Amino acid sequence: MGKSVRIGLLGAGRIGKLHGENLVYAVPNATLAAVADPFLNDDTRAWAANLGVENCYDDPEKIFSDDSIDAVWICSSTSTHADFIKQAAKAGKHAFCEKPIDTDLAVIEEAIAAVEEAGVKLQVGFVRRFDHNHKKVRDTVASGKLGAPHIIKVTSRDPDHQPMEYIKVSGGIFLDMTIHDFDMARYLAGSEVTEVTAYGAALSGAGYDEVGDIDTAIVMLKFENGALGVIDNSRAAHYGYDQRTEVHCDKGCVQVANDLNDTSMISTAEGVEVSKPTWFFLERYNNAFIAEAVAFADAIIKDTPSLVGGKDGLAPVKIALAAAKSLKENRSVQISEIV
Amino acid sequence: MGKSVRIGLLGAGRIGKLHGENLVYAVPNATLAAVADPFLNDDTRAWAANLGVENCYDDPEKIFSDDSIDAVWICSSTSTHADFIKQAAKAGKHAFCEKPIDTDLAVIEEAIAAVEEAGVKLQVGFVRRFDHNHKKVRDTVASGKLGAPHIIKVTSRDPDHQPMEYIKVSGGIFLDMTIHDFDMARYLAGSEVTEVTAYGAALSGAGYDEVGDIDTAIVMLKFENGALGVIDNSRAAHYGYDQRTEVHCDKGCVQVANDLNDTSMISTAEGVEVSKPTWFFLERYNNAFIAEAVAFADAIIKDTPSLVGGKDGLAPVKIALAAAKSLKENRSVQISEIV
Amino acid sequence: MGKSVRIGLLGAGRIGKLHGENLVYAVPNATLAAVADPFLNDDTRAWAANLGVENCYDDPEKIFSDDSIDAVWICSSTSTHADFIKQAAKAGKHAFCEKPIDTDLAVIEEAIAAVEEAGVKLQVGFVRRFDHNHKKVRDTVASGKLGAPHIIKVTSRDPDHQPMEYIKVSGGIFLDMTIHDFDMARYLAGSEVTEVTAYGAALSGAGYDEVGDIDTAIVMLKFENGALGVIDNSRAAHYGYDQRTEVHCDKGCVQVANDLNDTSMISTAEGVEVSKPTWFFLERYNNAFIAEAVAFADAIIKDTPSLVGGKDGLAPVKIALAAAKSLKENRSVQISEIV
Amino acid sequence: MGKSVRIGLLGAGRIGKLHGENLVYAVPNATLAAVADPFLNDDTRAWAANLGVENCYDDPEKIFSDDSIDAVWICSSTSTHADFIKQAAKAGKHAFCEKPIDTDLAVIEEAIAAVEEAGVKLQVGFVRRFDHNHKKVRDTVASGKLGAPHIIKVTSRDPDHQPMEYIKVSGGIFLDMTIHDFDMARYLAGSEVTEVTAYGAALSGAGYDEVGDIDTAIVMLKFENGALGVIDNSRAAHYGYDQRTEVHCDKGCVQVANDLNDTSMISTAEGVEVSKPTWFFLERYNNAFIAEAVAFADAIIKDTPSLVGGKDGLAPVKIALAAAKSLKENRSVQISEIV
Repeated sequence: MGKSVRIGLLGAGRIGKLHGENLVYAVPNATLAAVADPFLNDDTRAWAANLGVENCYDDPEKIFSDDSIDAVWICSSTSTHADFIKQAAKAGKHAFCEKPIDTDLAVIEEAIAAVEEAGVKLQVGFVRRFDHNHKKVRDTVASGKLGAPHIIKVTSRDPDHQPMEYIKVSGGIFLDMTIHDFDMARYLAGSEVTEVTAYGAALSGAGYDEVGDIDTAIVMLKFENGALGVIDNSRAAHYGYDQRTEVHCDKGCVQVANDLNDTSMISTAEGVEVSKPTWFFLERYNNAFIAEAVAFADAIIKDTPSLVGGKDGLAPVKIALAAAKSLKENRSVQISEIV
Repeated sequence: MGKSVRIGLLGAGRIGKLHGENLVYAVPNATLAAVADPFLNDDTRAWAANLGVENCYDDPEKIFSDDSIDAVWICSSTSTHADFIKQAAKAGKHAFCEKPIDTDLAVIEEAIAAVEEAGVKLQVGFVRRFDHNHKKVRDTVASGKLGAPHIIKVTSRDPDHQPMEYIKVSGGIFLDMTIHDFDMARYLAGSEVTEVTAYGAALSGAGYDEVGDIDTAIVMLKFENGALGVIDNSRAAHYGYDQRTEVHCDKGCVQVANDLNDTSMISTAEGVEVSKPTWFFLERYNNAFIAEAVAFADAIIKDTPSLVGGKDGLAPVKIALAAAKSLKENRSVQISEIV
Repeated sequence: MGKSVRIGLLGAGRIGKLHGENLVYAVPNATLAAVADPFLNDDTRAWAANLGVENCYDDPEKIFSDDSIDAVWICSSTSTHADFIKQAAKAGKHAFCEKPIDTDLAVIEEAIAAVEEAGVKLQVGFVRRFDHNHKKVRDTVASGKLGAPHIIKVTSRDPDHQPMEYIKVSGGIFLDMTIHDFDMARYLAGSEVTEVTAYGAALSGAGYDEVGDIDTAIVMLKFENGALGVIDNSRAAHYGYDQRTEVHCDKGCVQVANDLNDTSMISTAEGVEVSKPTWFFLERYNNAFIAEAVAFADAIIKDTPSLVGGKDGLAPVKIALAAAKSLKENRSVQISEIV
Repeated sequence: MGKSVRIGLLGAGRIGKLHGENLVYAVPNATLAAVADPFLNDDTRAWAANLGVENCYDDPEKIFSDDSIDAVWICSSTSTHADFIKQAAKAGKHAFCEKPIDTDLAVIEEAIAAVEEAGVKLQVGFVRRFDHNHKKVRDTVASGKLGAPHIIKVTSRDPDHQPMEYIKVSGGIFLDMTIHDFDMARYLAGSEVTEVTAYGAALSGAGYDEVGDIDTAIVMLKFENGALGVIDNSRAAHYGYDQRTEVHCDKGCVQVANDLNDTSMISTAEGVEVSKPTWFFLERYNNAFIAEAVAFADAIIKDTPSLVGGKDGLAPVKIALAAAKSLKENRSVQISEIV
């Protein structure tokens, strides 16, 4: 392995372009060698050319068959993730995969098995683990200086509604949005979730109930290590992307507030105004997107374990399915029920 | 009714003395006329004399039979509350009663009935409603400018363990401690709780499990108006009295942070230190204790309704009993089950 | 000396009434025995009666000749301060005196000499020394843990204009308003000011220039211990009473922010609003007014030195006179020039 | 002019490498075509090769004679700045120049004249104008919604001492460090400085006095528009890079706090810890370095005026020289004295 990982990007939609630009401009230990998108058009070709990418395909197979490519970056639609992981494994390529791997446990498990068999690395895109704030909470808890964790709290609210066309096919709030929080809860607790109870409602008036979904949720968690957790979500906070966590431990508490657009305070007779939270994930987590890419390239180069591996891809999906079941049946659900 | 309400204090323990001193020093529209405590000793006599209180008894009956007294302040042990309320009602005196009225619903209902029949006023000591921070959250939500409430969050952690002797007879965390948060949740939501799910654990190692209690709890709530709520509690935060609330509404969010000992920030190469939250309820809520007394004296003088009446005394007890049942049976419990 | 200091209040205007009420309601080691005001009217009589004050005079002499009175609280107009201090000294009574003692150095020195000769105590009303925030800065610096102070900064802005009638007779911004900041700078630095340079302007359009005054000032200070200081003032901040200090020391910095009305944050699509600073000195420093009274009563009872004695009354007047001279002559002025 | 400005970098020391990397990785409308450094060594060659820079010289002349190059980025030592600007002008190339242009007014004026004569653009590296916080203050003041500015405050403290070897040749604190704050004060006030009074001292014990310099300074400013200003500086804050500004205007105040490493708060019985300010300018202002480069490339491409032109390069040097004179002569100095 050289000093730079050669990467093929699969899927050049919004998140794919974000990753592609980061790989070119901000990830020194990676080279974006090729892009493949079944809906390849002139805009995407121009975008790739501008980035200096050598090859641009509408057939992903061309990436899998290119021996000079070390790893793929799977940014296509969720239904294609597991197949692409398996193809990458077969071709001996490492795979970065956006979350979730799939919504079907058996499919996820197959993909993980393929990766393990092939001896390639898999990193799942739980990007918040690489964010400065969330990382600080995790590192503080993991250091043990506050003692054992008792309560893990995650507040996660999107700034505004996604198009209802997207919501319809999103898999529901727990698989689409809360899945990041389930991952964060596991990460902060340093322990697996054993039980879930979910409350939810469609309160925004935007029509989530008409597509069988909710826009407001609170989910309680029990962890193997005895800790309790709680997540609260809204689809539309309106004031920005509300991303806070807090862990109360035996000897104290660590919490993080939102990143703001700036640190200004404007005071007049009418009132005192401070800045809003950074709007959405593209702005809020851009440094974390870069850091996760650097970390995976580094793991490939140094042959160290992936920081967010297959197990980390599987567990939050199980929790999300348990939460959906809990909401539907209005009862607490054991993770062991989800098979 | 004159311009000053003449008050008889029942119970001169820690909380009774707090109320007594406030009534003398800080409540202009009240006069502390008499104190009764069955365990009356020289210290309490000296304390009362120092406050300029005219009469000091070991028999509460002397207060009820004193026609010059307009109202009683019931600060004795919980088991005596309901009886004292009924005696006050019978004697035509208004009653301020520390929370909870009782832990038995029938007993509470009897006391409320007695008050209503006698046409006297009852105010229950849910003091946080009179705190500047909590009141700001309530007023903002109630103003309607943020739209309908979707999520009500209450964080409430005591700074340190109470003696285990106290815990044993406290009625359990939900009736002793969370009851304030149940009241706050109703107050902020402007709606009644219909369902409760409680998670709890004894994690501190201080022995709560040995007396059948817990030290860590998360409780989810459903409200009649469709809103969802969540409370998290710890018996020992260690860093101070952690008292925060947050309401996420249709158009935005209102939240309050802790009051701190001061606004200092000390920055050195070793780190940046800010002040701790005000230690405990005596310091944190002293202005609110004064405000609730002023408000009740005012309601008596002007013959306006009590701001925290019998219904407000009953509802949180029902929620607490439902939470205890939920914890025991590991299921969601309807408030309508609690009879 | 008994356990309670018997006090005669001289002057029952706004600040006199504030002190009077605190002495009755909130200062356990003091008794307000008498009030004297040359403009005594029915309102003031009723106010005193309501407080339970025994005697109410229009002649201050009656207080000085009352042997049962231990101390006077001088809250009358500035021009009477020094005379009242001397009369108190002559009568063997301790004296609390609102700031400034006088605007004439010789007069102040005479008053201090009288007090020292009589062996009575004098405390000057530099109330901010008793404020939780300012005290924390002072205590941190004085502890030495940050090393020697290098820069002392004081920001002090009044929330709104005083009536121009008041400004005309106020003695100018430095003697009327900045004098508190000069005291604070000395207190925080733990050292005497040796040189002053003042910049000032009338920028508000409210007419300060028409009465020979300014509404905006910045003053630099040099201290004996080598530290530098800077104060900035405005007569009308509009958003509240802006009271912040900051000391940069050899090993780090201690700073305090404003006290706010509450800790709320209200976030919507339009912006994020936090609370305004507490409006003005009556609200902002009420606890400090109580603490300074408790401290002086305590010093009298225990016969310990006054915490803010004659020297502390004199020094800020010298600095204020030097600042006025600096502004007028547009040059740096040595304190030693002010005689 | 095409869509990308071809740039030659002059000087590849610490700040030159920072600019070079930004131009390659983060400035889409620029191409780093060549690097010249008289001390060119293998490390610099490797650095340039890794960035994909085509040409690497030890002779700057090669850049000036290359017709394909549109602009130079002058990051060499201060003594070379003015000559390089003049050479660029002669060669018809635009010039970005790190601050200060020079410490001699005549030399600066000659360089500016050369640029104006040649009709090329000059941008001076006052990077803080492009920082999100400082820009927010400026934009708020410039919007006029707070009314006219009355007081401009700039706090600027470096995190730790520079090597004394550097200090010796730095030109003194005002030309080396405060010059950024002089620029910021002009920028925020929207007005020229007319008078300066400086206080300064060597208090850190690090030996600044031995080289005729100071480590601690407070400088008062008067502006043409009547506003007053104050800057405070320390060479070693120890807790991080302290960069705050505040403007008090007729109707209110706008202020900005430091950017912090993260938003964490860790609370225990021992105290409450928050994060330190971002360490130093490389981290704190990296986004601003990128933004200033994007802005200059944009001005070149669109042929719009430079946002920080020759006048902006000259004015702060005059203020710095006036401050040095004020400190030396212990008096207020008019800017008009500096010729």
